[in-house]
This record gives sequence, structure tokens and C-alpha cells, in this order.
Amino acid sequence: MSAILVVGSVGYDTISTPTGLRKNILGGSANYFSLAASLYAPVQVVGVVGQDYRAEDKQVLEARGVDLRGLQQVPGKTFAWEGKYEKDMNEAITLSTHLNVFENFQPTLPLDYRSTEVVFLANIDPVLQLQVLEQVKSPRLVGADTMNYWIRSKRPALLKVLERIDVLLINETELRDLTGSWNTIRAAKEVLQMGPKAVVIKRGEYGFILFCESRYFILPAYPVEDVVDPTGAGDTFAGGFLGHLAQLNRAWRRDDLKQACVHGCLLASFTVQDFGLEGIRNVQNAQLQDRIRAYGQIIA
Amino acid sequence: MSAILVVGSVGYDTISTPTGLRKNILGGSANYFSLAASLYAPVQVVGVVGQDYRAEDKQVLEARGVDLRGLQQVPGKTFAWEGKYEKDMNEAITLSTHLNVFENFQPTLPLDYRSTEVVFLANIDPVLQLQVLEQVKSPRLVGADTMNYWIRSKRPALLKVLERIDVLLINETELRDLTGSWNTIRAAKEVLQMGPKAVVIKRGEYGFILFCESRYFILPAYPVEDVVDPTGAGDTFAGGFLGHLAQLNRAWRRDDLKQACVHGCLLASFTVQDFGLEGIRNVQNAQLQDRIRAYGQIIA
Repeated sequence: MSAILVVGSVGYDTISTPTGLRKNILGGSANYFSLAASLYAPVQVVGVVGQDYRAEDKQVLEARGVDLRGLQQVPGKTFAWEGKYEKDMNEAITLSTHLNVFENFQPTLPLDYRSTEVVFLANIDPVLQLQVLEQVKSPRLVGADTMNYWIRSKRPALLKVLERIDVLLINETELRDLTGSWNTIRAAKEVLQMGPKAVVIKRGEYGFILFCESRYFILPAYPVEDVVDPTGAGDTFAGGFLGHLAQLNRAWRRDDLKQACVHGCLLASFTVQDFGLEGIRNVQNAQLQDRIRAYGQIIA
Repeated sequence: MSAILVVGSVGYDTISTPTGLRKNILGGSANYFSLAASLYAPVQVVGVVGQDYRAEDKQVLEARGVDLRGLQQVPGKTFAWEGKYEKDMNEAITLSTHLNVFENFQPTLPLDYRSTEVVFLANIDPVLQLQVLEQVKSPRLVGADTMNYWIRSKRPALLKVLERIDVLLINETELRDLTGSWNTIRAAKEVLQMGPKAVVIKRGEYGFILFCESRYFILPAYPVEDVVDPTGAGDTFAGGFLGHLAQLNRAWRRDDLKQACVHGCLLASFTVQDFGLEGIRNVQNAQLQDRIRAYGQIIA
């Protein structure tokens, strides 16, 4: 299997949902991604934390064998996000974002990370995503995420990223912002004209769309009765998706991407069942396999 | 095959969407339902129109062999609805509703309609839905739809309807209003405690959920790049759903409901591709079969 390099945020979240409130819990795209992807392949993290970052929070990833040598610890405070969900759990309302040490972050890859074959550029400034791409040699598969803020404020850099990646993973509101189209089906086609060879549209409780080689693959999400906290579901999806592809250890084919979407979607269904990383951090492969079987019954 | 009796609205719609405006075009739940269901089985319509109802508008249904003896024509104006869709085509914004002759409507079934085996109670006052149920003898399958207005204003009558039907077909906002739950998966279970043996949740561009015999069946919608007018998609779904079940001509099983959902979902994908009834009125079985095959490729 190939290793996976992820660059993304590592931080502390304060999250309010209809079922409760959690303050300063571990979060960030790189953490969700790594916990999911580490079920499949070795994961290397590139990111930054402040001096307030707790040793036990590193331990959450280290317990899953995640390589944190690329996680810089610098003076200052760790990235922090505060958000809430009201009745409609599909939409997070951001209350505050403190970039803190992320503000002056310059990703520098340890030398042996530079030949890693699978790369995920989580939702960070596309200028930083490009800096990571400059440092990796010739990965066989690059996935990326983004968000409305970068689509609006850093469009030229983002378009350069899109020219250099294989798969873009985004949600429907981001897709609309990126393409200007409110029709998800048409917008998927438009993304491929920007460079990626495939696009995965994450639709939350409605599942996903994969568009690749002029064909759609569309499935619903796994039905979850007890959605506690949707934070990190998209990053978990990406972790399962790229994890599955890294494990296959070969040039990807369309059918591989289909299976990868199912893995991503089902791992995300664990994440939403508890606050923060609690839903995903202890998931074992046997549980995932059980859920894949149950899912097969629901869609057939 | 069994015949299908439908009671619902027949009227004129004025519809504005991002792609255009149509004034006073033929619409109403019974019309959409009948055009879809008539692909499978003989359809009988119970409803009311005013003296302004045009002979050529009856002809649209008669051309598909629909029995209109139960469609009363009375003094006054036909039911009229005006609505618009903005960029988000998932949500109709009602600008006006004129009940007109519907205001004093008392459904009276022609004698030979009373032994019809499959019945659909489209979205009308649940008091009228009950009046229809009083007149039919012992149908083997009853489906019903409703809307937020009745859920809020006529809840006791609606609860009586729910005790007497086999399948409730509703959308997600109606489901929330009916159950008070924002979790669609949990809400589906709650509906069955109100009486129906199955519930079909119509999710528009996201497809559907069938919940029956403690199990979920969930699939996405057929991907449509050119959504012109979503009006009537839900009634078309119901027409394909009950049409398929009427054609089977036997006591329904869970697997029949699953196939029926696929038929409803795919017929609805034709309706949204043009204004009003234009998308569905000329669909032939061969086109539906082509789309079912294409759909099979997308979800597998």
C-alpha cells in the first residue's frame, strides 16, 4: 500500500448542536482525515499547532500510527473554530474562526514525505496547497477540498490547484460558488473542465455524486437516526476515500473511485454519531465491514 | 391489472422559474398522477372543475384513456395556483392559491368506481380524503399524500386518514411537520406508528426513502441536467408508484414497493424536464425502460 500525505488544519473546536455543547475539543480537517485514512494506510500529517497543543491530543493520532513529524509546533495559540447547528443539521453556522498559528503557516515537508504517492490537500488557503504540491515529487493521486471563503477570495490560486489535482471533493454549496450553477449535475461536468479528472460531491445526509469519465455514480448516505454532530463528516469522507485508494496501490480506475466513495460515505456515518472525533477515533475495520454489508441491503 | 382511483386537484397553474414563465397552464395533482399512472393501468379521476375548464384540457387525459366520469363540472372557476421557483429549484414559493370550485367540493364516486382496488388520495383536505374512503368498498391498496397546510390545520382528520391507508407519500418538510422530528430516518419510523404500513419520503433531486417492515430502501434521483419546472414531480412519483403496484395485480409485498419507488422516481424525472404536464404527457413505456436501464448504471 502507499502512504498518504495530508495537509490541513489541526485545532480546537467549540460546537453546539441540539443535543449538547462541547468546548475546545480536538478537531480540524487533518485530524478527521487521518483517523479515517489510517484504517487503510500509513498517514503523514503536515500542519501547525501552537504551544497550547496537548500531548494527549497528539496521542489520539499516534495511537493509530499516524506520522506527526510534519506537524510543526510553534509559539502562539492553536487554530480554533466555534460553530453551531440548529435543527437543520446539514448546515454549520460559524460563530468564530481564529487562525492563530495558522496565519503565518508555511508548510515544509520532511524530506521523506516528498515522495509520498497519495496526497490530500484539505481545506486550507490554495496558496498553501500549491506550496505543498511544489514540494511533492510525482504523486500518483492528489485529492483536494476547498471552501466558499477561498473560492471567493483566492480564485486564481484555487484554479491553479484544480489544474494539478486528480480529484476534487466538495459539497454542494461550494460547487455552486465554484461554477455559478445551481444544477449539481451540470456543475459536476463544469468542474472537470477546470482540470480535475474526477469530482466527488459530498451531499451530507443525501450521500454523494461521483462524476468521472463522463459518467455519474450516485448513492445515498447510510441512514443515521442519531446524528449528534456533523462536524468533520466531509474530512472523514475524504480520509476513507483516499485511504481506500492508497491501499489499492495501483493507478486508479473509475471503479476504484466508486468503491472509495462508499468507504468515505460509510466512515462519515460514524463521525456524525458523536461529538468531534469521538465517533471515528475507535472505529475498527470489522465495524466498517458490518456497515458496508448493511448499506448493501439498503440500496438494493 | 387493477384500476386506480385518484381524488385530487385539477386546475390551472401560473409558474415562474429561472428558465421562464407559463400562465394558466394545465396542472393539479390529479392530472400529474393520472398521466403517470395511465402508463400502467386504467385510471379513474374524482375531482371538480369550473365552467372555464377547456375541452382540450380534458382531452390531455382522455388521450391516455383516463376515465373522467368522476370529474364534476360545476358553475364557477377552476382551481388556480400561482408559484415561483428561484435558483433553488427544490422549493416552490406559493404566490397565490384560489380554491374556487374546490371550496364547496363534495366528492361523489360513480357507482362503478366504488369497487376500484387501488386508491390514491392526493393532497386535498383530509376531510374530503375520508369522504372518499367512506365510499370505496375494500381497496387492496390505498396511498395518500398531504401538505403542511392540512398537517397544521386539520390534524385530527389527517390522523384518521393515516389509520386507514397503506402508504403515505410525503416530502421532507411535510414529514418534519407531521412528526416534529428533523431527523428523516427517525421520522420515517414515527409515521408507521400513526397507521400506515409503509412511508415513502420524496426528496426531490435527492431521491427517496422507503420505510416498510422495519427496513429502509434508499436511492438517489435520476440525474437531470435541465430541470425546467419541478411542479408536479411528487404527484408524478405517486402515479408511477401506484401505477406499478396496480399493474402487478396482487397483494403488495415490500419488494414490490421498492420497484414501485424506482418507477415513481424515474417518471418524476421526465416531469421536471419541461413546464407543467409537457414533460410527462407524451412519455411512452419504451422511454421509461431506457431510463430505468440508465439509472441502473448510475447506482451500481
